[in-house]
Amino acid sequence: MLVVQSDAHRSHQPREIISRGQAIPHWEVASRADALLSAVKTGGHDLRPPVAHGLGPIEAIHDTGYLEFLKTAWSRWQELPDPTPYVHPYAQPNRRMTGLPTGIQGQAGYYMATNSAPIAEGTWIASLASADIALTAASALLSGETAAYALCRPPGHHAFSDLAGGFCYLNNIAIAASHLTQRWPQLAILDIDVHHGNGTQSIFYERNDVLFVSLHGDPSDYFPFFAGYADETGSGLGANKNLNLPLPKGAGDAEFLVALEVALKKIRDHKPGALLVSLGFDGFEKDPIGCLKITNACFGEIARRVSALELPTLLVQEGGYDVPSLESNLSSFLDGFNN
Amino acid sequence: MLVVQSDAHRSHQPREIISRGQAIPHWEVASRADALLSAVKTGGHDLRPPVAHGLGPIEAIHDTGYLEFLKTAWSRWQELPDPTPYVHPYAQPNRRMTGLPTGIQGQAGYYMATNSAPIAEGTWIASLASADIALTAASALLSGETAAYALCRPPGHHAFSDLAGGFCYLNNIAIAASHLTQRWPQLAILDIDVHHGNGTQSIFYERNDVLFVSLHGDPSDYFPFFAGYADETGSGLGANKNLNLPLPKGAGDAEFLVALEVALKKIRDHKPGALLVSLGFDGFEKDPIGCLKITNACFGEIARRVSALELPTLLVQEGGYDVPSLESNLSSFLDGFNN
Repeated sequence: MLVVQSDAHRSHQPREIISRGQAIPHWEVASRADALLSAVKTGGHDLRPPVAHGLGPIEAIHDTGYLEFLKTAWSRWQELPDPTPYVHPYAQPNRRMTGLPTGIQGQAGYYMATNSAPIAEGTWIASLASADIALTAASALLSGETAAYALCRPPGHHAFSDLAGGFCYLNNIAIAASHLTQRWPQLAILDIDVHHGNGTQSIFYERNDVLFVSLHGDPSDYFPFFAGYADETGSGLGANKNLNLPLPKGAGDAEFLVALEVALKKIRDHKPGALLVSLGFDGFEKDPIGCLKITNACFGEIARRVSALELPTLLVQEGGYDVPSLESNLSSFLDGFNN
Repeated sequence: MLVVQSDAHRSHQPREIISRGQAIPHWEVASRADALLSAVKTGGHDLRPPVAHGLGPIEAIHDTGYLEFLKTAWSRWQELPDPTPYVHPYAQPNRRMTGLPTGIQGQAGYYMATNSAPIAEGTWIASLASADIALTAASALLSGETAAYALCRPPGHHAFSDLAGGFCYLNNIAIAASHLTQRWPQLAILDIDVHHGNGTQSIFYERNDVLFVSLHGDPSDYFPFFAGYADETGSGLGANKNLNLPLPKGAGDAEFLVALEVALKKIRDHKPGALLVSLGFDGFEKDPIGCLKITNACFGEIARRVSALELPTLLVQEGGYDVPSLESNLSSFLDGFNN
């Protein structure tokens, strides 16, 4: 399979996030990408570097004020008295206030949804490269490839048009989907990361051209908490073009595959010209922040079923935090996809 | 002057808040109340304990789901694996998601706007007592007192109907105002804390019976960041019943008193039956988290001008964090008010 990858992600390595009021080591580490790359190399896939696509395709998805924030936040933060190493929000508008402040401390709260998307010096560069990886893989589909894997880091599916959150800054899969609409008027996104793709859902929630279907841990007591519920089905033009399939904590292969069939039927009914997959391995049974019990073999089975849709398919890497298992889980998926 | 106070606030003493991604010592400490009480005792005021008013007047302002959260949050948080000492939000809906999760970690984000309103074991008890202090002082006005001072701790003006934030949990002045509407159909709230009273504004934003007027540091680069702008003038029935007078960083007595005259004219024009004052001393020139340069003498002058409205007046304590100056600043205000 064609695989797009770059080492530019190494410029983004914030060491900690804030969870429950205290700093803890970041889960989304550079060694994740190394482990995934090992699987690509072992599998003998066709590895290519990203091609810069410029800001145009990114601005098609993201708010320009938000992009300016992402680009400048770290250096502005460093001008504060006693600056901390990473930009973090500590006061947010939540659902009750709307004013957009001019200062960096307020903007951090305005443009960030969680304490788990710290902005480091190299976050903007790494995020741009990650989006270019997804765009380059998407461009390969436009050129006739039937499948491509975008080894993105940082991930993207928790990024909204104007909000960072949950380890994500730019929504790589949404940017790639927007790029693909130039060829295919109907697209589908399947999100199998263990966390609901709240950013992706939000971006396409009122659109009828891009179907969004997500399998994930029940958000009622699991990140991202505020979206991912079954009653979120799209609105306006996008009515009935959003399908959430939350799974109970501890659900395993059998339950996941039953839900996957529901997802695949919804996708077939939409008749997309191409498919994009938000590919997370954090549903794995040993994932340190997962809540499901998906086995290594099941990732292959998921891939076989997705592959059986026989659609041009873009695989976009999202989460997965049990680093020692990432190589074998990606291998299982890519092997299943090609068979 | 009649003063209502209680020692119940001592059950609420969280030691730290999260600011810019790191834990720092809490500014809103119990010794603040001790310093304020010293001024009351030195001034020979008429000190009384609060009378419990029950949940009714609180439920008139606050969402019942939020109240249940405040009451149970700390004990639910302690049931998490490796619980931290205080309830803190770390993922928030911000302006893009609306789902209400059932679990405590998600609800912390749903019901809390900032990382500066940690919930400790005794927060609920102290917050109830603080609301009862405001209610008891309000009841005294209903009984014919012309002025009363509610020595509230924790403060309240950053608390929304369904959000804690900025050291605040229950909006004491809003609860008291609601209680006073049984006698006076028109009320005015004057907020002179250095931070905009975003919670109070929000609670009365669509009401035409309670005018809200606030003098505060410009929120474009100052807490609470997302509200407090001059263009927020009320909506619906409340149109033109909200007046924000943001002051530039470093503004002193002269600028504050000019803005105060604008505020007092707006209040007179509203023809309220009674006045409530959100009384903060964090505009003081030495306040560690203030942004204005108000002098001790000016607090007396502010009080004289407010007192000249000749309205039944409820003073409700909000912020002020330079503990050594609190006694003299409150003395200056109370002396000015009575002269």
